Amino acid sequence: MSTTLEPTDRTRIRRGRNRAVADRTELHALLADALVAHLGVTVGDHPVVLPTAFAVDADGPDEGGTLYVHGSVGARWLQEAGDATVCVTVTELDGLVAGRSAFHHSMNYRSAVVIGRARVVTDPAERQHALDLIVDHMIPGRSATLRPSTRKELAATAVLAVPLHEASMKARAGGPVDEPEDVAAGIWGGHLPLTRVVGAPVVDHQTPAEVAVPDDVRARALHRA
Amino acid sequence: MSTTLEPTDRTRIRRGRNRAVADRTELHALLADALVAHLGVTVGDHPVVLPTAFAVDADGPDEGGTLYVHGSVGARWLQEAGDATVCVTVTELDGLVAGRSAFHHSMNYRSAVVIGRARVVTDPAERQHALDLIVDHMIPGRSATLRPSTRKELAATAVLAVPLHEASMKARAGGPVDEPEDVAAGIWGGHLPLTRVVGAPVVDHQTPAEVAVPDDVRARALHRA
Repeated sequence: MSTTLEPTDRTRIRRGRNRAVADRTELHALLADALVAHLGVTVGDHPVVLPTAFAVDADGPDEGGTLYVHGSVGARWLQEAGDATVCVTVTELDGLVAGRSAFHHSMNYRSAVVIGRARVVTDPAERQHALDLIVDHMIPGRSATLRPSTRKELAATAVLAVPLHEASMKARAGGPVDEPEDVAAGIWGGHLPLTRVVGAPVVDHQTPAEVAVPDDVRARALHRA
Repeated sequence: MSTTLEPTDRTRIRRGRNRAVADRTELHALLADALVAHLGVTVGDHPVVLPTAFAVDADGPDEGGTLYVHGSVGARWLQEAGDATVCVTVTELDGLVAGRSAFHHSMNYRSAVVIGRARVVTDPAERQHALDLIVDHMIPGRSATLRPSTRKELAATAVLAVPLHEASMKARAGGPVDEPEDVAAGIWGGHLPLTRVVGAPVVDHQTPAEVAVPDDVRARALHRA
Protein backbone atom coordinates (compact mmCIF):
# COMPACT_ATOMS: atom_id res chain seq x y z
CA MET A 1 0.00 0.00 0.00
CA SER A 2 1.24 3.45 -0.83
CA THR A 3 2.18 5.57 2.15
CA THR A 4 0.84 8.74 0.57
CA LEU A 5 -2.69 9.69 -0.31
CA GLU A 6 -3.29 9.75 -4.03
CA PRO A 7 -6.15 12.14 -4.68
CA THR A 8 -8.03 11.68 -7.88
CA ASP A 9 -9.99 14.45 -9.51
CA ARG A 10 -12.90 13.50 -7.25
CA THR A 11 -11.01 13.83 -3.98
CA ARG A 12 -8.45 16.50 -4.90
CA ILE A 13 -8.58 19.39 -2.47
CA ARG A 14 -9.23 22.60 -4.35
CA ARG A 15 -9.84 25.10 -1.59
CA GLY A 16 -7.57 25.45 1.42
CA ARG A 17 -4.72 23.41 0.00
CA ASN A 18 -2.62 24.58 2.95
CA ARG A 19 -4.83 22.27 5.03
CA ALA A 20 -4.36 19.22 2.84
CA VAL A 21 -2.70 16.23 4.47
CA ALA A 22 -0.90 13.85 2.14
CA ASP A 23 0.32 11.23 4.59
CA ARG A 24 -1.62 7.97 4.63
CA THR A 25 -0.52 7.25 8.22
CA GLU A 26 -2.38 10.41 9.32
CA LEU A 27 -5.50 9.17 7.53
CA HIS A 28 -5.31 5.90 9.44
CA ALA A 29 -4.66 7.73 12.73
CA LEU A 30 -7.83 9.77 12.17
CA LEU A 31 -9.84 6.68 11.26
CA ALA A 32 -8.57 5.01 14.44
CA ASP A 33 -9.62 7.98 16.62
CA ALA A 34 -13.05 8.60 15.12
CA LEU A 35 -16.09 6.54 16.10
CA VAL A 36 -18.68 7.71 13.60
CA ALA A 37 -18.56 8.07 9.82
CA HIS A 38 -21.03 10.01 7.71
CA LEU A 39 -21.97 7.99 4.65
CA GLY A 40 -23.40 9.78 1.64
CA VAL A 41 -25.53 7.77 -0.78
CA THR A 42 -27.61 8.95 -3.70
CA VAL A 43 -31.24 8.00 -3.12
CA GLY A 44 -33.43 8.91 -6.06
CA ASP A 45 -32.36 12.38 -7.17
CA HIS A 46 -30.66 13.62 -4.02
CA PRO A 47 -27.96 12.68 -1.53
CA VAL A 48 -28.75 11.16 1.84
CA VAL A 49 -26.14 11.37 4.60
CA LEU A 50 -26.35 8.98 7.53
CA PRO A 51 -24.13 8.54 10.59
CA THR A 52 -22.77 5.04 11.05
CA ALA A 53 -20.29 3.01 13.04
CA PHE A 54 -17.35 1.83 10.98
CA ALA A 55 -14.01 0.07 11.08
CA VAL A 56 -10.93 -0.13 8.90
CA ASP A 57 -8.87 -3.05 7.70
CA ALA A 58 -5.70 -1.43 6.36
CA ASP A 59 -4.82 -4.77 4.77
CA GLY A 60 -8.35 -5.43 3.54
CA PRO A 61 -9.08 -6.72 0.05
CA ASP A 62 -9.80 -3.32 -1.53
CA GLU A 63 -7.27 -1.01 -3.08
CA GLY A 64 -5.79 1.20 -0.37
CA GLY A 65 -7.37 -0.92 2.36
CA THR A 66 -11.03 -1.35 3.26
CA LEU A 67 -13.46 0.70 5.31
CA TYR A 68 -16.44 -1.32 6.56
CA VAL A 69 -19.88 -0.14 7.62
CA HIS A 70 -22.82 -2.28 8.62
CA GLY A 71 -26.53 -1.94 8.98
CA SER A 72 -29.85 -3.73 8.79
CA VAL A 73 -30.38 -5.70 5.59
CA GLY A 74 -33.70 -3.86 5.33
CA ALA A 75 -32.18 -0.38 5.44
CA ARG A 76 -32.89 1.46 2.20
CA TRP A 77 -29.58 3.35 2.23
CA LEU A 78 -27.66 0.08 2.36
CA GLN A 79 -29.65 -1.26 -0.56
CA GLU A 80 -29.01 1.93 -2.54
CA ALA A 81 -25.32 1.95 -1.68
CA GLY A 82 -24.51 -1.51 -3.03
CA ASP A 83 -22.37 -1.12 -6.18
CA ALA A 84 -22.97 2.64 -6.14
CA THR A 85 -20.37 5.36 -5.70
CA VAL A 86 -20.60 6.58 -2.13
CA CYS A 87 -18.78 9.16 -0.04
CA VAL A 88 -17.65 8.37 3.48
CA THR A 89 -16.57 11.37 5.54
CA VAL A 90 -14.96 11.10 8.96
CA THR A 91 -14.44 14.24 11.04
CA GLU A 92 -12.88 14.84 14.42
CA LEU A 93 -13.43 18.26 15.90
CA ASP A 94 -10.40 19.43 17.88
CA GLY A 95 -11.07 23.06 18.74
CA LEU A 96 -12.79 26.38 18.24
CA VAL A 97 -10.62 29.17 16.84
CA ALA A 98 -11.44 32.62 18.21
CA GLY A 99 -10.02 34.98 15.59
CA ARG A 100 -9.76 38.74 15.82
CA SER A 101 -12.50 39.12 13.17
CA ALA A 102 -15.58 37.12 12.21
CA PHE A 103 -13.90 36.14 8.94
CA HIS A 104 -11.01 34.44 10.73
CA HIS A 105 -13.09 32.39 13.13
CA SER A 106 -12.55 28.74 12.36
CA MET A 107 -12.48 25.26 13.81
CA ASN A 108 -9.60 22.92 14.44
CA TYR A 109 -10.36 19.51 12.97
CA ARG A 110 -9.16 16.49 11.08
CA SER A 111 -11.38 15.28 8.29
CA ALA A 112 -11.12 12.57 5.65
CA VAL A 113 -13.29 12.24 2.55
CA VAL A 114 -13.32 8.82 0.91
CA ILE A 115 -15.09 8.28 -2.41
CA GLY A 116 -15.48 4.83 -3.84
CA ARG A 117 -17.71 2.11 -5.16
CA ALA A 118 -19.41 0.34 -2.25
CA ARG A 119 -19.21 -3.43 -2.31
CA VAL A 120 -21.79 -5.57 -0.51
CA VAL A 121 -19.73 -8.10 1.44
CA THR A 122 -21.09 -11.60 0.81
CA ASP A 123 -18.17 -13.83 1.81
CA PRO A 124 -19.06 -15.20 5.28
CA ALA A 125 -15.49 -15.00 6.59
CA GLU A 126 -15.05 -11.40 5.44
CA ARG A 127 -18.46 -10.46 6.89
CA GLN A 128 -17.55 -11.97 10.26
CA HIS A 129 -14.15 -10.26 10.19
CA ALA A 130 -15.74 -6.90 9.37
CA LEU A 131 -18.31 -7.21 12.17
CA ASP A 132 -15.55 -8.14 14.65
CA LEU A 133 -13.54 -5.10 13.53
CA ILE A 134 -16.55 -2.80 14.04
CA VAL A 135 -17.11 -4.06 17.60
CA ASP A 136 -13.39 -3.87 18.37
CA HIS A 137 -13.20 -0.35 16.97
CA MET A 138 -15.70 0.72 19.65
CA ILE A 139 -14.13 -1.31 22.45
CA PRO A 140 -10.74 -2.85 21.60
CA GLY A 141 -10.50 -6.57 22.24
CA ARG A 142 -14.21 -6.99 22.84
CA SER A 143 -15.22 -9.26 19.96
CA ALA A 144 -13.09 -12.11 21.31
CA THR A 145 -15.01 -12.04 24.60
CA LEU A 146 -18.48 -12.41 23.06
CA ARG A 147 -20.42 -15.49 21.97
CA PRO A 148 -20.43 -16.18 18.21
CA SER A 149 -23.16 -14.40 16.27
CA THR A 150 -26.09 -16.61 15.37
CA ARG A 151 -27.04 -17.39 11.78
CA LYS A 152 -30.15 -15.26 12.27
CA GLU A 153 -28.14 -12.28 13.54
CA LEU A 154 -25.71 -12.53 10.63
CA ALA A 155 -28.58 -12.83 8.15
CA ALA A 156 -30.10 -9.62 9.51
CA THR A 157 -26.89 -7.64 9.08
CA ALA A 158 -25.57 -6.15 5.84
CA VAL A 159 -21.92 -5.19 5.51
CA LEU A 160 -20.59 -2.70 2.98
CA ALA A 161 -16.94 -2.32 2.01
CA VAL A 162 -15.53 0.94 0.63
CA PRO A 163 -11.98 1.09 -0.76
CA LEU A 164 -9.71 3.63 0.95
CA HIS A 165 -7.83 4.31 -2.27
CA GLU A 166 -9.56 7.57 -3.19
CA ALA A 167 -9.18 9.58 -0.04
CA SER A 168 -8.28 13.12 0.82
CA MET A 169 -7.63 14.57 4.21
CA LYS A 170 -7.62 18.05 5.66
CA ALA A 171 -6.55 19.22 9.07
CA ARG A 172 -6.33 22.47 10.97
CA ALA A 173 -4.65 23.06 14.32
CA GLY A 174 -3.57 25.99 16.45
CA GLY A 175 -4.68 29.57 16.75
CA PRO A 176 -6.17 32.08 14.32
CA VAL A 177 -4.52 33.43 11.17
CA ASP A 178 -5.60 37.04 11.41
CA GLU A 179 -5.23 40.23 9.42
CA PRO A 180 -2.06 42.18 10.37
CA GLU A 181 -4.09 45.29 11.28
CA ASP A 182 -6.25 43.32 13.73
CA VAL A 183 -3.13 41.84 15.34
CA ALA A 184 -1.57 45.31 15.52
CA ALA A 185 -4.71 46.56 17.30
CA GLY A 186 -3.77 44.38 20.29
CA ILE A 187 -6.93 42.23 20.19
CA TRP A 188 -6.93 38.86 21.99
CA GLY A 189 -6.67 35.84 19.70
CA GLY A 190 -6.53 32.16 20.50
CA HIS A 191 -8.42 28.92 20.51
CA LEU A 192 -10.41 26.58 22.73
CA PRO A 193 -9.36 22.90 22.59
CA LEU A 194 -12.14 20.30 22.35
CA THR A 195 -11.68 16.74 23.56
CA ARG A 196 -14.00 13.77 23.86
CA VAL A 197 -14.00 12.01 27.18
CA VAL A 198 -15.14 8.45 27.96
CA GLY A 199 -16.97 8.30 31.27
CA ALA A 200 -16.97 5.46 33.77
CA PRO A 201 -18.90 2.33 32.67
CA VAL A 202 -22.62 2.41 33.54
CA VAL A 203 -23.84 -1.11 34.36
CA ASP A 204 -27.38 -1.97 33.32
CA HIS A 205 -30.07 -3.15 35.72
CA GLN A 206 -30.00 -6.70 34.30
CA THR A 207 -26.42 -7.42 35.35
CA PRO A 208 -26.09 -9.47 38.56
CA ALA A 209 -24.47 -7.42 41.33
CA GLU A 210 -21.49 -9.76 41.63
CA VAL A 211 -20.47 -9.50 37.95
CA ALA A 212 -17.44 -7.23 37.52
CA VAL A 213 -16.95 -4.73 34.69
CA PRO A 214 -15.11 -6.63 31.92
CA ASP A 215 -11.45 -5.69 31.42
CA ASP A 216 -12.04 -4.47 27.84
CA VAL A 217 -14.85 -2.12 28.92
CA ARG A 218 -12.81 -0.87 31.88
CA ALA A 219 -9.78 -0.24 29.64
CA ARG A 220 -11.92 1.67 27.11
CA ALA A 221 -13.11 4.03 29.83
CA LEU A 222 -9.53 4.92 30.71
CA HIS A 223 -8.70 6.15 27.23
CA ARG A 224 -9.61 9.31 25.45
CA ALA A 225 -12.39 8.45 23.00
CA MET B 1 -43.76 26.85 13.14
CA SER B 2 -45.10 23.41 13.88
CA THR B 3 -43.86 21.88 17.10
CA THR B 4 -43.64 18.42 15.60
CA LEU B 5 -41.39 17.12 12.87
CA GLU B 6 -43.24 16.42 9.67
CA PRO B 7 -41.31 13.77 7.81
CA THR B 8 -41.93 13.55 4.12
CA ASP B 9 -41.30 10.39 2.15
CA ARG B 10 -37.67 11.52 1.85
CA THR B 11 -37.04 11.90 5.55
CA ARG B 12 -39.42 9.29 6.95
CA ILE B 13 -37.60 6.87 9.22
CA ARG B 14 -38.09 3.35 7.94
CA ARG B 15 -35.73 1.32 10.08
CA GLY B 16 -35.56 1.67 13.84
CA ARG B 17 -38.79 3.59 14.24
CA ASN B 18 -38.48 3.08 17.99
CA ARG B 19 -35.59 5.56 17.77
CA ALA B 20 -37.53 8.22 15.87
CA VAL B 21 -37.98 11.53 17.62
CA ALA B 22 -40.97 13.58 16.58
CA ASP B 23 -40.54 16.65 18.74
CA ARG B 24 -39.24 19.74 16.98
CA THR B 25 -37.85 21.13 20.25
CA GLU B 26 -35.52 18.12 20.46
CA LEU B 27 -34.32 18.83 16.93
CA HIS B 28 -33.48 22.38 17.92
CA ALA B 29 -31.78 21.21 21.13
CA LEU B 30 -29.55 18.90 19.07
CA LEU B 31 -28.77 21.65 16.56
CA ALA B 32 -27.87 23.93 19.48
CA ASP B 33 -25.47 21.33 20.98
CA ALA B 34 -23.73 20.24 17.79
CA LEU B 35 -20.90 22.25 16.28
CA VAL B 36 -20.40 20.49 12.95
CA ALA B 37 -22.87 19.47 10.23
CA HIS B 38 -22.16 17.04 7.42
CA LEU B 39 -23.50 18.44 4.16
CA GLY B 40 -24.16 16.06 1.28
CA VAL B 41 -24.18 17.47 -2.22
CA THR B 42 -24.33 15.66 -5.55
CA VAL B 43 -21.21 16.46 -7.58
CA GLY B 44 -21.33 14.93 -11.03
CA ASP B 45 -22.63 11.38 -10.56
CA HIS B 46 -21.88 10.83 -6.90
CA PRO B 47 -22.46 12.37 -3.47
CA VAL B 48 -19.81 14.40 -1.68
CA VAL B 49 -20.09 14.85 2.09
CA LEU B 50 -18.22 17.69 3.75
CA PRO B 51 -18.04 18.81 7.37
CA THR B 52 -19.02 22.40 7.97
CA ALA B 53 -19.80 24.90 10.67
CA PHE B 54 -23.43 25.90 10.76
CA ALA B 55 -26.07 27.86 12.64
CA VAL B 56 -29.84 27.85 12.89
CA ASP B 57 -32.38 30.65 12.80
CA ALA B 58 -35.57 29.02 14.05
CA ASP B 59 -37.46 32.08 12.81
CA GLY B 60 -35.55 32.28 9.54
CA PRO B 61 -37.28 32.91 6.21
CA ASP B 62 -37.50 29.24 5.15
CA GLU B 63 -40.29 26.85 5.99
CA GLY B 64 -39.59 25.25 9.38
CA GLY B 65 -36.78 27.70 10.06
CA THR B 66 -33.40 28.07 8.37
CA LEU B 67 -30.09 26.26 8.74
CA TYR B 68 -27.14 28.28 7.44
CA VAL B 69 -23.74 27.08 6.30
CA HIS B 70 -20.96 29.16 4.81
CA GLY B 71 -17.83 28.66 2.80
CA SER B 72 -15.51 30.16 0.27
CA VAL B 73 -17.23 31.53 -2.83
CA GLY B 74 -14.73 29.44 -4.80
CA ALA B 75 -15.62 26.12 -3.16
CA ARG B 76 -16.99 23.70 -5.72
CA TRP B 77 -19.42 22.07 -3.28
CA LEU B 78 -21.03 25.44 -2.56
CA GLN B 79 -21.42 26.11 -6.26
CA GLU B 80 -22.96 22.67 -6.79
CA ALA B 81 -25.27 23.04 -3.81
CA GLY B 82 -26.95 26.26 -4.93
CA ASP B 83 -30.57 25.47 -5.89
CA ALA B 84 -29.87 21.73 -5.57
CA THR B 85 -31.43 19.31 -3.12
CA VAL B 86 -28.92 18.72 -0.35
CA CYS B 87 -28.84 16.66 2.83
CA VAL B 88 -27.54 18.13 6.07
CA THR B 89 -26.89 15.63 8.83
CA VAL B 90 -25.99 16.58 12.38
CA THR B 91 -24.89 13.90 14.82
CA GLU B 92 -23.93 14.00 18.47
CA LEU B 93 -22.34 10.85 19.85
CA ASP B 94 -23.36 10.26 23.46
CA GLY B 95 -22.07 6.80 24.32
CA LEU B 96 -20.84 3.32 23.46
CA VAL B 97 -23.23 0.48 24.24
CA ALA B 98 -21.52 -2.73 25.37
CA GLY B 99 -24.10 -5.41 24.69
CA ARG B 100 -23.91 -9.06 25.68
CA SER B 101 -23.46 -10.06 22.02
CA ALA B 102 -21.80 -8.45 19.00
CA PHE B 103 -25.24 -7.95 17.43
CA HIS B 104 -26.45 -5.78 20.30
CA HIS B 105 -23.45 -3.50 20.45
CA SER B 106 -24.58 -0.02 19.58
CA MET B 107 -23.96 3.66 20.10
CA ASN B 108 -25.94 6.25 21.97
CA TYR B 109 -26.48 9.30 19.80
CA ARG B 110 -28.80 12.03 18.60
CA SER B 111 -28.92 12.59 14.87
CA ALA B 112 -30.95 14.80 12.56
CA VAL B 113 -31.26 14.45 8.79
CA VAL B 114 -32.48 17.52 6.92
CA ILE B 115 -33.25 17.36 3.21
CA GLY B 116 -34.05 20.47 1.27
CA ARG B 117 -33.33 22.77 -1.60
CA ALA B 118 -30.32 24.91 -0.79
CA ARG B 119 -30.73 28.61 -1.40
CA VAL B 120 -27.73 30.87 -2.02
CA VAL B 121 -28.24 33.82 0.30
CA THR B 122 -27.81 37.06 -1.63
CA ASP B 123 -29.57 39.63 0.56
CA PRO B 124 -26.79 41.53 2.37
CA ALA B 125 -28.71 41.78 5.65
CA GLU B 126 -29.54 38.06 5.69
CA ARG B 127 -25.94 37.18 4.82
CA GLN B 128 -24.62 39.33 7.66
CA HIS B 129 -27.18 37.85 10.06
CA ALA B 130 -26.25 34.29 9.03
CA LEU B 131 -22.52 34.92 9.48
CA ASP B 132 -23.14 36.45 12.92
CA LEU B 133 -25.22 33.39 13.87
CA ILE B 134 -22.43 31.03 12.77
CA VAL B 135 -19.82 32.86 14.89
CA ASP B 136 -22.20 33.05 17.85
CA HIS B 137 -23.01 29.34 17.52
CA MET B 138 -19.32 28.60 18.17
CA ILE B 139 -18.90 31.20 20.91
CA PRO B 140 -22.15 32.77 22.14
CA GLY B 141 -22.16 36.55 22.12
CA ARG B 142 -18.94 36.84 20.16
CA SER B 143 -20.12 38.51 16.94
CA ALA B 144 -21.10 41.67 18.81
CA THR B 145 -17.53 42.06 20.10
CA LEU B 146 -15.84 41.93 16.69
CA ARG B 147 -15.21 44.64 14.09
CA PRO B 148 -17.62 44.64 11.13
CA SER B 149 -16.62 42.39 8.24
CA THR B 150 -15.06 44.23 5.32
CA ARG B 151 -16.64 44.31 1.89
CA LYS B 152 -13.79 42.09 0.65
CA GLU B 153 -14.38 39.51 3.42
CA LEU B 154 -18.10 39.42 2.71
CA ALA B 155 -17.46 39.07 -1.04
CA ALA B 156 -15.22 36.05 -0.39
CA THR B 157 -17.87 34.24 1.65
CA ALA B 158 -20.83 32.31 0.28
CA VAL B 159 -23.81 31.53 2.52
CA LEU B 160 -26.28 28.73 1.89
CA ALA B 161 -29.69 28.41 3.53
CA VAL B 162 -31.44 25.06 3.93
CA PRO B 163 -35.06 24.91 5.14
CA LEU B 164 -35.58 22.86 8.32
CA HIS B 165 -39.03 21.76 7.18
CA GLU B 166 -38.06 18.27 5.97
CA ALA B 167 -36.25 16.86 8.96
CA SER B 168 -36.18 13.59 10.79
CA MET B 169 -34.44 12.79 14.03
CA LYS B 170 -33.31 9.62 15.74
CA ALA B 171 -31.91 9.16 19.21
CA ARG B 172 -30.68 6.32 21.35
CA ALA B 173 -29.82 6.41 25.04
CA GLY B 174 -29.13 3.98 27.85
CA GLY B 175 -27.85 0.43 28.00
CA PRO B 176 -28.07 -2.54 25.65
CA VAL B 177 -31.25 -4.30 24.54
CA ASP B 178 -30.04 -7.89 24.69
CA GLU B 179 -31.36 -11.36 23.96
CA PRO B 180 -33.09 -12.89 27.02
CA GLU B 181 -30.75 -15.91 26.99
CA ASP B 182 -27.65 -13.68 27.12
CA VAL B 183 -29.14 -11.74 30.04
CA ALA B 184 -30.00 -15.04 31.79
CA ALA B 185 -26.38 -16.13 31.38
CA GLY B 186 -25.35 -13.40 33.82
CA ILE B 187 -23.11 -11.53 31.39
CA TRP B 188 -22.18 -7.91 32.16
CA GLY B 189 -24.04 -5.32 30.07
CA GLY B 190 -23.88 -1.56 30.12
CA HIS B 191 -22.63 1.52 28.36
CA LEU B 192 -19.84 4.09 28.38
CA PRO B 193 -20.97 7.73 28.29
CA LEU B 194 -19.13 10.07 25.91
CA THR B 195 -18.94 13.80 26.47
CA ARG B 196 -17.16 16.63 24.71
CA VAL B 197 -15.17 18.96 26.88
CA VAL B 198 -14.02 22.51 26.14
CA GLY B 199 -10.53 23.13 27.45
CA ALA B 200 -9.13 26.36 28.85
CA PRO B 201 -8.53 29.12 26.25
CA VAL B 202 -5.10 28.96 24.57
CA VAL B 203 -3.85 32.47 23.80
CA ASP B 204 -1.82 32.92 20.64
CA HIS B 205 1.69 34.35 20.55
CA GLN B 206 0.53 37.58 18.88
CA THR B 207 -1.63 38.67 21.81
CA PRO B 208 0.03 41.28 24.09
CA ALA B 209 0.67 39.86 27.56
CA GLU B 210 -1.59 42.42 29.25
CA VAL B 211 -4.69 41.57 27.17
CA ALA B 212 -7.18 39.44 29.15
CA VAL B 213 -9.18 36.54 27.75
CA PRO B 214 -12.48 38.04 26.51
CA ASP B 215 -15.56 37.26 28.60
CA ASP B 216 -17.30 35.38 25.75
CA VAL B 217 -14.29 33.09 25.19
CA ARG B 218 -13.92 32.51 28.93
CA ALA B 219 -17.64 31.69 29.27
CA ARG B 220 -17.47 29.22 26.35
CA ALA B 221 -14.70 27.30 28.08
CA LEU B 222 -16.84 26.81 31.15
CA HIS B 223 -19.62 25.07 29.26
CA ARG B 224 -19.85 21.61 27.86
CA ALA B 225 -19.27 21.83 24.13
